[in-house]
Amino acid sequence: MAYRKTPAEIRRLEAARDRLVDCATAVVAEVGWAQASVTAVAGAAGIAAGSVYQHFPSKAALAVEVFRRAAGREVEVLGEVLRGPGDPAGRLAAGVRVFARRALENRGLAYALLAAPAEPAVGAERLDHRLRYRALFAEVVREGIADGTLPPQDAEVTAAALTGGIGEVLVAPLGTADDDGDSGELLAELTAMALRCAGADPAGPHP
Amino acid sequence: MAYRKTPAEIRRLEAARDRLVDCATAVVAEVGWAQASVTAVAGAAGIAAGSVYQHFPSKAALAVEVFRRAAGREVEVLGEVLRGPGDPAGRLAAGVRVFARRALENRGLAYALLAAPAEPAVGAERLDHRLRYRALFAEVVREGIADGTLPPQDAEVTAAALTGGIGEVLVAPLGTADDDGDSGELLAELTAMALRCAGADPAGPHP
Repeated sequence: MAYRKTPAEIRRLEAARDRLVDCATAVVAEVGWAQASVTAVAGAAGIAAGSVYQHFPSKAALAVEVFRRAAGREVEVLGEVLRGPGDPAGRLAAGVRVFARRALENRGLAYALLAAPAEPAVGAERLDHRLRYRALFAEVVREGIADGTLPPQDAEVTAAALTGGIGEVLVAPLGTADDDGDSGELLAELTAMALRCAGADPAGPHP
Repeated sequence: MAYRKTPAEIRRLEAARDRLVDCATAVVAEVGWAQASVTAVAGAAGIAAGSVYQHFPSKAALAVEVFRRAAGREVEVLGEVLRGPGDPAGRLAAGVRVFARRALENRGLAYALLAAPAEPAVGAERLDHRLRYRALFAEVVREGIADGTLPPQDAEVTAAALTGGIGEVLVAPLGTADDDGDSGELLAELTAMALRCAGADPAGPHP
Protein backbone atom coordinates (compact mmCIF):
# COMPACT_ATOMS: atom_id res chain seq x y z
CA MET A 1 0.00 0.00 0.00
CA ALA A 2 1.39 3.38 -1.03
CA TYR A 3 2.40 5.75 1.71
CA ARG A 4 -0.07 8.60 2.02
CA LYS A 5 0.83 11.95 3.52
CA THR A 6 -1.31 13.04 6.47
CA PRO A 7 -3.14 16.41 6.23
CA ALA A 8 -0.66 17.82 8.74
CA GLU A 9 2.28 16.69 6.60
CA ILE A 10 0.73 18.23 3.47
CA ARG A 11 0.19 21.54 5.27
CA ARG A 12 3.77 21.50 6.49
CA LEU A 13 5.10 20.79 2.98
CA GLU A 14 2.99 23.57 1.49
CA ALA A 15 4.16 26.03 4.10
CA ALA A 16 7.80 25.07 3.41
CA ARG A 17 7.22 25.48 -0.34
CA ASP A 18 5.60 28.89 0.18
CA ARG A 19 8.50 30.01 2.32
CA LEU A 20 10.95 28.79 -0.32
CA VAL A 21 9.16 30.78 -3.06
CA ASP A 22 9.15 33.88 -0.83
CA CYS A 23 12.90 33.53 -0.27
CA ALA A 24 13.54 32.90 -3.97
CA THR A 25 11.49 36.01 -4.84
CA ALA A 26 13.59 38.10 -2.48
CA VAL A 27 16.79 36.70 -4.02
CA VAL A 28 15.57 37.40 -7.58
CA ALA A 29 14.62 40.95 -6.57
CA GLU A 30 18.12 41.39 -5.14
CA VAL A 31 20.36 39.79 -7.78
CA GLY A 32 18.21 38.98 -10.85
CA TRP A 33 17.32 35.69 -12.53
CA ALA A 34 20.78 34.66 -13.68
CA GLN A 35 22.39 34.96 -10.25
CA ALA A 36 19.49 33.41 -8.34
CA SER A 37 21.00 29.92 -8.23
CA VAL A 38 19.47 27.05 -6.30
CA THR A 39 22.42 27.33 -3.90
CA ALA A 40 21.77 31.06 -3.35
CA VAL A 41 18.06 30.48 -2.77
CA ALA A 42 18.68 27.55 -0.43
CA GLY A 43 21.17 29.69 1.49
CA ALA A 44 18.62 32.48 1.84
CA ALA A 45 16.01 29.99 3.02
CA GLY A 46 18.46 28.37 5.45
CA ILE A 47 18.03 24.89 3.94
CA ALA A 48 20.25 22.51 1.99
CA ALA A 49 20.29 22.88 -1.81
CA GLY A 50 19.01 19.32 -2.08
CA SER A 51 15.88 20.28 -0.13
CA VAL A 52 14.94 22.78 -2.87
CA TYR A 53 14.53 19.82 -5.23
CA GLN A 54 11.98 18.28 -2.86
CA HIS A 55 9.69 21.10 -3.95
CA PHE A 56 10.85 21.99 -7.48
CA PRO A 57 12.40 19.68 -10.08
CA SER A 58 14.66 22.42 -11.48
CA LYS A 59 15.83 26.00 -11.10
CA ALA A 60 13.59 26.87 -14.09
CA ALA A 61 10.51 25.43 -12.37
CA LEU A 62 11.25 27.50 -9.25
CA ALA A 63 11.84 30.62 -11.38
CA VAL A 64 8.51 30.11 -13.15
CA GLU A 65 6.72 29.82 -9.80
CA VAL A 66 8.43 33.02 -8.56
CA PHE A 67 7.35 34.84 -11.72
CA ARG A 68 3.79 33.51 -11.66
CA ARG A 69 3.20 34.42 -8.07
CA ALA A 70 4.76 37.91 -8.22
CA ALA A 71 3.43 38.87 -11.66
CA GLY A 72 0.06 37.32 -10.89
CA ARG A 73 -0.24 39.61 -7.87
CA GLU A 74 0.45 42.68 -10.07
CA VAL A 75 -2.14 41.60 -12.63
CA GLU A 76 -4.63 41.11 -9.80
CA VAL A 77 -3.98 44.52 -8.23
CA LEU A 78 -4.21 46.26 -11.63
CA GLY A 79 -7.41 44.36 -12.43
CA GLU A 80 -9.01 45.40 -9.14
CA VAL A 81 -8.34 49.08 -9.84
CA LEU A 82 -9.32 48.94 -13.53
CA ARG A 83 -12.56 47.16 -12.65
CA GLY A 84 -13.23 49.26 -9.55
CA PRO A 85 -15.53 52.24 -9.12
CA GLY A 86 -15.31 55.41 -11.23
CA ASP A 87 -15.42 56.36 -14.91
CA PRO A 88 -13.19 54.36 -17.31
CA ALA A 89 -10.58 57.12 -17.80
CA GLY A 90 -10.33 57.68 -14.06
CA ARG A 91 -9.87 53.96 -13.50
CA LEU A 92 -7.22 53.81 -16.24
CA ALA A 93 -5.32 56.67 -14.60
CA ALA A 94 -5.58 55.05 -11.15
CA GLY A 95 -4.52 51.66 -12.53
CA VAL A 96 -1.42 53.05 -14.26
CA ARG A 97 -0.48 55.00 -11.14
CA VAL A 98 -0.87 51.99 -8.85
CA PHE A 99 1.01 49.68 -11.21
CA ALA A 100 3.90 52.13 -11.65
CA ARG A 101 4.09 53.05 -7.98
CA ARG A 102 4.28 49.40 -6.96
CA ALA A 103 7.03 48.84 -9.53
CA LEU A 104 9.02 51.86 -8.33
CA GLU A 105 8.67 50.71 -4.72
CA ASN A 106 10.11 47.28 -5.52
CA ARG A 107 12.48 48.07 -8.37
CA GLY A 108 14.55 44.90 -8.33
CA LEU A 109 11.53 42.64 -8.54
CA ALA A 110 9.72 44.84 -11.07
CA TYR A 111 12.78 44.89 -13.32
CA ALA A 112 12.99 41.10 -13.11
CA LEU A 113 9.30 40.78 -13.99
CA LEU A 114 9.25 43.35 -16.80
CA ALA A 115 12.57 43.29 -18.57
CA ALA A 116 15.54 41.39 -17.16
CA PRO A 117 17.01 38.68 -19.39
CA ALA A 118 15.61 35.35 -18.19
CA GLU A 119 15.45 31.72 -19.16
CA PRO A 120 12.96 30.79 -21.92
CA ALA A 121 10.39 29.34 -19.48
CA VAL A 122 10.23 32.69 -17.67
CA GLY A 123 10.10 34.49 -21.04
CA ALA A 124 7.03 32.46 -21.95
CA GLU A 125 5.36 33.42 -18.65
CA ARG A 126 6.19 37.07 -19.30
CA LEU A 127 4.51 36.91 -22.70
CA ASP A 128 1.45 35.32 -21.12
CA HIS A 129 1.24 38.03 -18.45
CA ARG A 130 1.58 40.81 -21.04
CA LEU A 131 -1.49 39.36 -22.73
CA ARG A 132 -3.33 39.56 -19.40
CA TYR A 133 -2.38 43.23 -19.00
CA ARG A 134 -3.55 43.88 -22.55
CA ALA A 135 -6.87 42.19 -21.87
CA LEU A 136 -7.43 44.31 -18.74
CA PHE A 137 -6.56 47.57 -20.52
CA ALA A 138 -8.71 46.62 -23.54
CA GLU A 139 -11.68 46.03 -21.24
CA VAL A 140 -11.58 49.49 -19.63
CA VAL A 141 -10.95 51.19 -23.01
CA ARG A 142 -13.94 49.38 -24.53
CA GLU A 143 -16.10 50.51 -21.60
CA GLY A 144 -14.99 54.09 -22.21
CA ILE A 145 -15.82 53.87 -25.91
CA ALA A 146 -19.21 52.36 -25.09
CA ASP A 147 -20.20 55.07 -22.58
CA GLY A 148 -18.79 57.84 -24.81
CA THR A 149 -16.10 59.04 -22.38
CA LEU A 150 -13.35 57.78 -24.73
CA PRO A 151 -13.30 58.38 -28.50
CA PRO A 152 -13.75 55.55 -31.02
CA GLN A 153 -10.51 53.56 -31.37
CA ASP A 154 -9.26 50.00 -31.73
CA ALA A 155 -9.21 49.03 -28.03
CA GLU A 156 -6.78 46.18 -28.74
CA VAL A 157 -4.24 48.52 -30.35
CA THR A 158 -4.53 50.99 -27.45
CA ALA A 159 -4.24 48.18 -24.90
CA ALA A 160 -1.11 46.75 -26.57
CA ALA A 161 0.41 50.23 -26.78
CA LEU A 162 -0.30 50.86 -23.08
CA THR A 163 1.25 47.52 -22.10
CA GLY A 164 4.40 48.04 -24.17
CA GLY A 165 4.60 51.77 -23.53
CA ILE A 166 4.27 51.66 -19.74
CA GLY A 167 6.87 48.89 -19.56
CA GLU A 168 9.32 50.81 -21.73
CA VAL A 169 8.87 54.02 -19.73
CA LEU A 170 9.52 52.17 -16.46
CA VAL A 171 12.51 50.07 -17.54
CA ALA A 172 15.14 52.83 -17.25
CA PRO A 173 14.06 54.10 -13.79
CA LEU A 174 13.76 50.48 -12.58
CA GLY A 175 17.34 49.87 -13.67
CA THR A 176 18.49 52.54 -11.19
CA ALA A 177 18.94 51.16 -7.70
CA ASP A 178 16.84 53.53 -5.67
CA ASP A 179 14.29 56.29 -5.63
CA ASP A 180 15.88 59.38 -7.15
CA GLY A 181 13.15 61.59 -5.75
CA ASP A 182 11.44 62.13 -9.11
CA SER A 183 8.96 59.28 -8.75
CA GLY A 184 6.04 61.66 -8.25
CA GLU A 185 6.77 63.51 -11.48
CA LEU A 186 7.32 60.27 -13.40
CA LEU A 187 3.99 58.88 -12.14
CA ALA A 188 2.20 62.05 -13.22
CA GLU A 189 3.80 62.06 -16.68
CA LEU A 190 3.20 58.34 -17.20
CA THR A 191 -0.45 58.66 -16.20
CA ALA A 192 -0.93 61.68 -18.45
CA MET A 193 0.63 59.77 -21.35
CA ALA A 194 -1.67 56.78 -20.76
CA LEU A 195 -4.74 59.04 -20.74
CA ARG A 196 -3.64 60.75 -23.97
CA CYS A 197 -2.98 57.35 -25.54
CA ALA A 198 -6.59 56.32 -24.82
CA GLY A 199 -7.84 59.70 -26.06
CA ALA A 200 -9.23 60.77 -22.67
CA ASP A 201 -10.28 64.40 -22.44
CA PRO A 202 -7.25 66.10 -20.85
CA ALA A 203 -9.63 68.55 -19.15
CA GLY A 204 -11.48 65.65 -17.56
CA PRO A 205 -11.59 65.09 -13.79
CA HIS A 206 -9.42 61.92 -13.80
CA PRO A 207 -5.74 62.87 -13.55
CA MET B 1 57.92 41.48 -44.08
CA ALA B 2 54.24 40.92 -43.34
CA TYR B 3 51.98 40.01 -46.22
CA ARG B 4 49.75 42.95 -47.17
CA LYS B 5 46.45 42.53 -48.96
CA THR B 6 46.20 44.40 -52.26
CA PRO B 7 43.29 46.88 -52.70
CA ALA B 8 41.67 44.40 -55.08
CA GLU B 9 41.89 41.64 -52.48
CA ILE B 10 40.41 43.90 -49.81
CA ARG B 11 37.50 44.82 -52.09
CA ARG B 12 36.89 41.16 -52.87
CA LEU B 13 36.90 40.23 -49.17
CA GLU B 14 34.50 43.08 -48.33
CA ALA B 15 32.15 42.04 -51.13
CA ALA B 16 32.22 38.43 -49.88
CA ARG B 17 31.52 39.62 -46.33
CA ASP B 18 28.61 41.79 -47.51
CA ARG B 19 27.15 38.89 -49.43
CA LEU B 20 27.49 36.65 -46.39
CA VAL B 21 25.65 39.18 -44.17
CA ASP B 22 22.90 39.49 -46.80
CA CYS B 23 22.49 35.71 -46.88
CA ALA B 24 22.53 35.49 -43.07
CA THR B 25 19.87 38.24 -42.90
CA ALA B 26 17.64 36.26 -45.28
CA VAL B 27 18.14 33.10 -43.19
CA VAL B 28 17.32 34.95 -39.94
CA ALA B 29 14.19 36.43 -41.55
CA GLU B 30 13.15 32.93 -42.61
CA VAL B 31 13.93 30.80 -39.55
CA GLY B 32 14.84 33.17 -36.67
CA TRP B 33 18.04 33.61 -34.64
CA ALA B 34 18.16 30.22 -32.95
CA GLN B 35 17.88 28.23 -36.19
CA ALA B 36 20.24 30.46 -38.18
CA SER B 37 23.30 28.28 -37.62
CA VAL B 38 26.65 28.91 -39.28
CA THR B 39 25.99 25.75 -41.33
CA ALA B 40 22.60 27.06 -42.48
CA VAL B 41 24.04 30.46 -43.40
CA ALA B 42 27.02 28.93 -45.21
CA GLY B 43 24.63 26.66 -47.10
CA ALA B 44 22.50 29.64 -48.16
CA ALA B 45 25.63 31.50 -49.27
CA GLY B 46 26.95 28.45 -51.13
CA ILE B 47 30.22 28.40 -49.19
CA ALA B 48 31.82 26.04 -46.67
CA ALA B 49 31.02 26.62 -42.99
CA GLY B 50 34.73 27.19 -42.37
CA SER B 51 34.70 30.14 -44.79
CA VAL B 52 32.17 31.94 -42.57
CA TYR B 53 34.85 32.08 -39.87
CA GLN B 54 37.18 33.92 -42.26
CA HIS B 55 34.80 36.86 -41.86
CA PHE B 56 33.28 36.42 -38.38
CA PRO B 57 34.89 34.81 -35.33
CA SER B 58 31.57 33.38 -34.08
CA LYS B 59 27.90 32.94 -34.82
CA ALA B 60 27.20 35.67 -32.27
CA ALA B 61 29.46 38.14 -34.12
CA LEU B 62 27.67 37.37 -37.39
CA ALA B 63 24.26 37.74 -35.67
CA VAL B 64 25.28 41.11 -34.24
CA GLU B 65 26.33 42.31 -37.71
CA VAL B 66 23.01 41.12 -39.19
CA PHE B 67 21.13 42.98 -36.46
CA ARG B 68 23.17 46.16 -36.73
CA ARG B 69 22.84 46.41 -40.46
CA ALA B 70 19.10 45.62 -40.64
CA ALA B 71 18.06 47.59 -37.55
CA GLY B 72 20.40 50.43 -38.48
CA ARG B 73 18.58 50.74 -41.81
CA GLU B 74 15.21 51.02 -40.01
CA VAL B 75 16.53 53.68 -37.62
CA GLU B 76 17.87 55.58 -40.63
CA VAL B 77 14.60 55.41 -42.58
CA LEU B 78 12.58 56.47 -39.51
CA GLY B 79 15.03 59.29 -38.82
CA GLU B 80 14.75 60.59 -42.37
CA VAL B 81 10.96 60.78 -42.16
CA LEU B 82 10.88 62.22 -38.62
CA ARG B 83 13.43 64.88 -39.59
CA GLY B 84 11.89 65.51 -43.02
CA PRO B 85 9.55 68.27 -44.13
CA GLY B 86 6.20 69.02 -42.49
CA ASP B 87 4.88 69.84 -39.03
CA PRO B 88 6.04 67.63 -36.12
CA ALA B 89 2.74 65.74 -35.72
CA GLY B 90 2.59 65.06 -39.46
CA ARG B 91 6.15 63.75 -39.43
CA LEU B 92 5.40 61.57 -36.40
CA ALA B 93 2.39 60.08 -38.20
CA ALA B 94 4.41 59.51 -41.38
CA GLY B 95 7.31 57.99 -39.43
CA VAL B 96 5.10 55.51 -37.57
CA ARG B 97 3.35 54.56 -40.82
CA VAL B 98 6.62 53.99 -42.69
CA PHE B 99 8.18 52.04 -39.81
CA ALA B 100 5.11 49.79 -39.40
CA ARG B 101 4.61 49.27 -43.14
CA ARG B 102 8.23 48.21 -43.60
CA ALA B 103 7.87 45.81 -40.65
CA LEU B 104 4.65 44.31 -42.03
CA GLU B 105 6.24 43.89 -45.45
CA ASN B 106 9.17 41.92 -44.01
CA ARG B 107 7.56 40.22 -41.05
CA GLY B 108 10.18 37.56 -40.38
CA LEU B 109 13.01 40.06 -40.21
CA ALA B 110 10.97 42.63 -38.26
CA TYR B 111 10.00 39.98 -35.69
CA ALA B 112 13.66 38.98 -35.34
CA LEU B 113 14.67 42.62 -34.86
CA LEU B 114 11.87 43.59 -32.47
CA ALA B 115 10.97 40.62 -30.35
CA ALA B 116 12.34 37.16 -31.12
CA PRO B 117 14.41 35.50 -28.37
CA ALA B 118 18.06 36.03 -29.23
CA GLU B 119 21.50 35.60 -27.75
CA PRO B 120 22.64 38.21 -25.20
CA ALA B 121 24.88 40.05 -27.70
CA VAL B 122 21.88 40.62 -29.97
CA GLY B 123 19.78 41.58 -26.95
CA ALA B 124 22.31 44.28 -26.10
CA GLU B 125 22.12 45.62 -29.68
CA ARG B 126 18.33 45.64 -29.46
CA LEU B 127 18.47 47.73 -26.29
CA ASP B 128 20.86 50.15 -27.97
CA HIS B 129 18.57 50.52 -31.00
CA ARG B 130 15.52 51.12 -28.83
CA LEU B 131 17.39 54.04 -27.30
CA ARG B 132 17.99 55.38 -30.81
CA TYR B 133 14.26 55.15 -31.63
CA ARG B 134 13.48 56.90 -28.38
CA ALA B 135 15.93 59.69 -29.17
CA LEU B 136 14.36 60.22 -32.62
CA PHE B 137 10.81 60.29 -31.23
CA ALA B 138 11.85 62.60 -28.38
CA GLU B 139 13.33 65.03 -30.90
CA VAL B 140 10.15 65.39 -32.94
CA VAL B 141 7.96 65.61 -29.81
CA ARG B 142 10.20 68.37 -28.40
CA GLU B 143 9.91 70.27 -31.69
CA GLY B 144 6.13 70.01 -31.48
CA ILE B 145 6.09 71.28 -27.90
CA ALA B 146 8.40 74.15 -28.89
CA ASP B 147 6.27 75.30 -31.83
CA GLY B 148 3.04 74.80 -29.88
CA THR B 149 1.56 72.09 -32.14
CA LEU B 150 1.91 69.52 -29.34
CA PRO B 151 0.87 70.14 -25.71
CA PRO B 152 3.43 70.36 -22.87
CA GLN B 153 4.60 66.87 -21.87
CA ASP B 154 7.75 64.99 -20.86
CA ALA B 155 9.10 64.21 -24.35
CA GLU B 156 11.26 61.37 -22.99
CA VAL B 157 8.24 59.63 -21.45
CA THR B 158 6.24 59.99 -24.67
CA ALA B 159 9.19 58.77 -26.76
CA ALA B 160 9.70 55.70 -24.55
CA ALA B 161 5.97 54.96 -24.67
CA LEU B 162 5.95 55.25 -28.47
CA THR B 163 8.95 52.93 -28.78
CA GLY B 164 7.52 50.28 -26.46
CA GLY B 165 3.93 50.75 -27.60
CA ILE B 166 4.56 50.50 -31.34
CA GLY B 167 6.70 47.40 -30.81
CA GLU B 168 4.04 45.72 -28.68
CA VAL B 169 1.26 46.53 -31.17
CA LEU B 170 3.30 45.05 -34.03
CA VAL B 171 4.54 41.89 -32.32
CA ALA B 172 1.33 39.86 -32.70
CA PRO B 173 0.75 40.66 -36.41
CA LEU B 174 4.46 40.04 -37.12
CA GLY B 175 4.12 36.59 -35.57
CA THR B 176 1.59 35.69 -38.27
CA ALA B 177 3.23 34.49 -41.46
CA ASP B 178 1.61 36.72 -44.03
CA ASP B 179 -0.49 39.75 -44.74
CA ASP B 180 -4.00 39.04 -43.49
CA GLY B 181 -5.44 41.92 -45.49
CA ASP B 182 -5.96 44.15 -42.45
CA SER B 183 -2.60 45.93 -42.66
CA GLY B 184 -4.21 49.17 -43.84
CA GLU B 185 -6.54 49.29 -40.87
CA LEU B 186 -3.74 48.38 -38.45
CA LEU B 187 -1.51 51.14 -39.88
CA ALA B 188 -4.32 53.68 -39.48
CA GLU B 189 -5.07 52.62 -35.89
CA LEU B 190 -1.40 52.51 -34.93
CA THR B 191 -0.80 55.98 -36.36
CA ALA B 192 -3.88 57.39 -34.64
CA MET B 193 -2.70 55.90 -31.33
CA ALA B 194 0.77 57.44 -31.74
CA LEU B 195 -0.73 60.87 -32.44
CA ARG B 196 -3.01 60.62 -29.39
CA CYS B 197 -0.04 59.51 -27.28
CA ALA B 198 1.83 62.69 -28.25
CA GLY B 199 -1.32 64.75 -27.67
CA ALA B 200 -1.67 65.84 -31.31
CA ASP B 201 -4.92 67.56 -32.17
CA PRO B 202 -7.05 64.72 -33.63
CA ALA B 203 -8.72 67.27 -35.90
CA GLY B 204 -5.32 68.28 -37.30
CA PRO B 205 -4.29 67.73 -40.93
CA HIS B 206 -1.68 65.02 -40.20
CA PRO B 207 -3.40 61.61 -40.23
